[in-house]
Amino acid sequence: MALPIRPTLQAVRKFAVAQAQCRFYSAPTDGSIPAAKQRFVSNEGIYPKGFVVGSAHAGVKPSNTTRDDVAIVASEELCAAATFFTKNKFAAPPVTVSRNIVRKRKGSGLQGVVINSGCANAVTGKDGFADALSMSRAMDDLFGGQTESDGQIQGNDDASLGRSLVMSTGVIGQRLPIDKILSTIPKIKSKLGSSHEHWLSVAKAVMTTDTFPKLVSRQFTLPSDPNTTYTLAGFSKGAGMIHPNMATMLSVICTDVRILPAQLQEAGKDAVNESFNSITIDGDTSTNDSLAIFANGAATPPSSNGIEEFKGPDFKHFRKELKALAADLAKLVVLDGEGATKFVTIRVKAASVADGRIVGRSIAVSPLVKTALYGKDANWGRILCAIGNVRNPVIDPSSVSVSFDIPGTKSGHLSLVEKGRPQLPIDEAVAKQILDEEAVTINVDLISDSSVEGFYSTVWTCDLSHEYITINGDYRT
Amino acid sequence: MALPIRPTLQAVRKFAVAQAQCRFYSAPTDGSIPAAKQRFVSNEGIYPKGFVVGSAHAGVKPSNTTRDDVAIVASEELCAAATFFTKNKFAAPPVTVSRNIVRKRKGSGLQGVVINSGCANAVTGKDGFADALSMSRAMDDLFGGQTESDGQIQGNDDASLGRSLVMSTGVIGQRLPIDKILSTIPKIKSKLGSSHEHWLSVAKAVMTTDTFPKLVSRQFTLPSDPNTTYTLAGFSKGAGMIHPNMATMLSVICTDVRILPAQLQEAGKDAVNESFNSITIDGDTSTNDSLAIFANGAATPPSSNGIEEFKGPDFKHFRKELKALAADLAKLVVLDGEGATKFVTIRVKAASVADGRIVGRSIAVSPLVKTALYGKDANWGRILCAIGNVRNPVIDPSSVSVSFDIPGTKSGHLSLVEKGRPQLPIDEAVAKQILDEEAVTINVDLISDSSVEGFYSTVWTCDLSHEYITINGDYRT
Repeated sequence: MALPIRPTLQAVRKFAVAQAQCRFYSAPTDGSIPAAKQRFVSNEGIYPKGFVVGSAHAGVKPSNTTRDDVAIVASEELCAAATFFTKNKFAAPPVTVSRNIVRKRKGSGLQGVVINSGCANAVTGKDGFADALSMSRAMDDLFGGQTESDGQIQGNDDASLGRSLVMSTGVIGQRLPIDKILSTIPKIKSKLGSSHEHWLSVAKAVMTTDTFPKLVSRQFTLPSDPNTTYTLAGFSKGAGMIHPNMATMLSVICTDVRILPAQLQEAGKDAVNESFNSITIDGDTSTNDSLAIFANGAATPPSSNGIEEFKGPDFKHFRKELKALAADLAKLVVLDGEGATKFVTIRVKAASVADGRIVGRSIAVSPLVKTALYGKDANWGRILCAIGNVRNPVIDPSSVSVSFDIPGTKSGHLSLVEKGRPQLPIDEAVAKQILDEEAVTINVDLISDSSVEGFYSTVWTCDLSHEYITINGDYRT
Repeated sequence: MALPIRPTLQAVRKFAVAQAQCRFYSAPTDGSIPAAKQRFVSNEGIYPKGFVVGSAHAGVKPSNTTRDDVAIVASEELCAAATFFTKNKFAAPPVTVSRNIVRKRKGSGLQGVVINSGCANAVTGKDGFADALSMSRAMDDLFGGQTESDGQIQGNDDASLGRSLVMSTGVIGQRLPIDKILSTIPKIKSKLGSSHEHWLSVAKAVMTTDTFPKLVSRQFTLPSDPNTTYTLAGFSKGAGMIHPNMATMLSVICTDVRILPAQLQEAGKDAVNESFNSITIDGDTSTNDSLAIFANGAATPPSSNGIEEFKGPDFKHFRKELKALAADLAKLVVLDGEGATKFVTIRVKAASVADGRIVGRSIAVSPLVKTALYGKDANWGRILCAIGNVRNPVIDPSSVSVSFDIPGTKSGHLSLVEKGRPQLPIDEAVAKQILDEEAVTINVDLISDSSVEGFYSTVWTCDLSHEYITINGDYRT
């Protein structure tokens, strides 16, 4: 089988920090990828069978006169879908429309998704709902008229029913230039394809303040049949990492395995928890956050047709593959955090994964920790302060140990606090060495009793820089 | 009776925003007050009887070669105290020592407080505890040996017992240069006094990244005795407003009324809730946050001696006065937020004050809202997004109304959302006029039923600027 194709995430360690302070962290207006970020973009990829993708330029944002900003991802045959949406009370119309469609169809009979960047179509009321619905229908129209199942389901009298999901990202509180978008969607039909270039164009079309397209793919076989190769591919849009949860995160993952919708949803939930939810805060999301996973079964051998349920080992393996792909995508989102100059991994050992994640996030969202990392200031007291602010789980300060990984060593740690006792004086030379790197790893151990095993959780985040303010202070223009 | 003496907070509206983008938002290294902030600093004040204050230079931070950084506030006679400390699990040794003293003394028999800036003495273990204790004892020594009550209470065998509280602010995780501090404390004795200049020197000595001293005073009479004038005075140290809660906030308030410790604590709790807790998040605080209120009874007529309990109307009036003084101090802390260029008032009408405060804070801590305000970008969708992220209370989007106050009008509002319906298109010219002002007021109404009265709460915050990053990225040096 082929090896997984993905950008060299390891390259981050060597990422020249000196360059990191230049302005290239803003998305270049000409659509080019900053030199320092090019290593995160694949030159090749292998994509799942039976999916076609494409994009075109509509000019959703008036200032965008050239860049594609409408994209389509479609399965040639109707497929299964698992979806994960924002929990924000002001969920945008595209979220409402998509959720309705998936619910009514019980996760099957889906065509794919149409996406626009440049305007989130959020807090736009009934007009916005109608706009999102019209986008879904315009995509449906590209792939033929009503199917038999449409007819059955439309009997349910749901005005929002269609086969195509909708995602939007961009400024909140403005209407979509819907005519521009509706006239652009049909133009995409002739541009659909399944090459790496097609997928890259779609990953680029969904970018807003992103500086590079986030696209990954990998291949795998299942234990029950080593002769059939399956493929997973996905792309993400997302930036704005100070509170990662506040940025719109869109993600689409496609695979050519055949899987029951309920199993796809189950596997997806698991993958999201250990990827996007490790860079975001559960239930604390933007108006438009959406993740869709489509599975069309196009790689499943004809002899297997009709067999839709994954057996134990196959399902376990698929979950692992999906999780790995989602984690790669999530890391790319962090690596493209608005203004980010550092990739920060926070590993927490605690009585449970959930406890550890709460503590990891308290550190990850602390602006004082994030600015200290940006300034390469070994102000580790701020890390402890962030830990000490957690109310639940109850932290026992005398059980807390904190260390930095020392780069270039396999298991070297710079201990900052050992079971509550500060390890003063800190070796400032080693601290400087650690903070000069772009990748910084913070280890937190909340369990003082070394005979207790504990559970590990990981949170990824980035630092908070001047560039973040520049990007976010003037976003609408 | 004399009028309250306080800085002209109203002046904020006229604060030239153009100036706000210069570097002067950092604390000037020569200790001077930036021109734009001078209006927030009183030229005069009237201070409570029986208190003496003073400061001196110890050089806690090696780079500080001139500025006073150790201060003392003392009551000539032992007095009552109400205290409020951080809830951070890594509470610093000065907090632990002070809390022990106040508890053992049940809020009476206190001398005052000794404060240093430049180093927080936080996460410094047993050595740090010993350092804090030695500061308390050094101040005790200035005001004579053990009192009779000391002897009684020392029978309780508490090593930390003293009559003087301790506060420290500055970098976390470093030991105090305790010898420097202990040799400086005695030098303050000859510099103690009760003039405006004395109080100003103390308010300056506690500054870290503050750009101006925050000192307020006011006088009042009690309903039962219009012939006796009492005085309240206080100063604060605090900055770092992105998550206001994460910055060290120190505050000392003194008054010459005579009041029972339990009543002082009760009135203080109320005042803190509607002042410092309206700019900070309960239970989510820095390692050193401390507020002490001292009351020595020095203005109480001799004929009243022995009468310590406030009667109803007097107590009610005192609470009001204390609350007003605390609110003035808290607003000054926001006005000196690190890098702040805007003073933002968020008024929320909700089913309860507590509900409203949760929603107000969700808006106040949103970096996307704060950067939009800095960039004068009327990206009001981010305000809704922040509201929509609140889980408890449960928000009904169709009940939410949001507006900006229009400056220069008495009751003019720019409506953004009316009972969940976006008021598109927004008048961008008016929005620009609003955001060009330094003072911005956001109104949120969560109650759609106009026959329901609702409760109002107010949260104050500031914007998030480039300057914040500069200050916090390089704090320890």
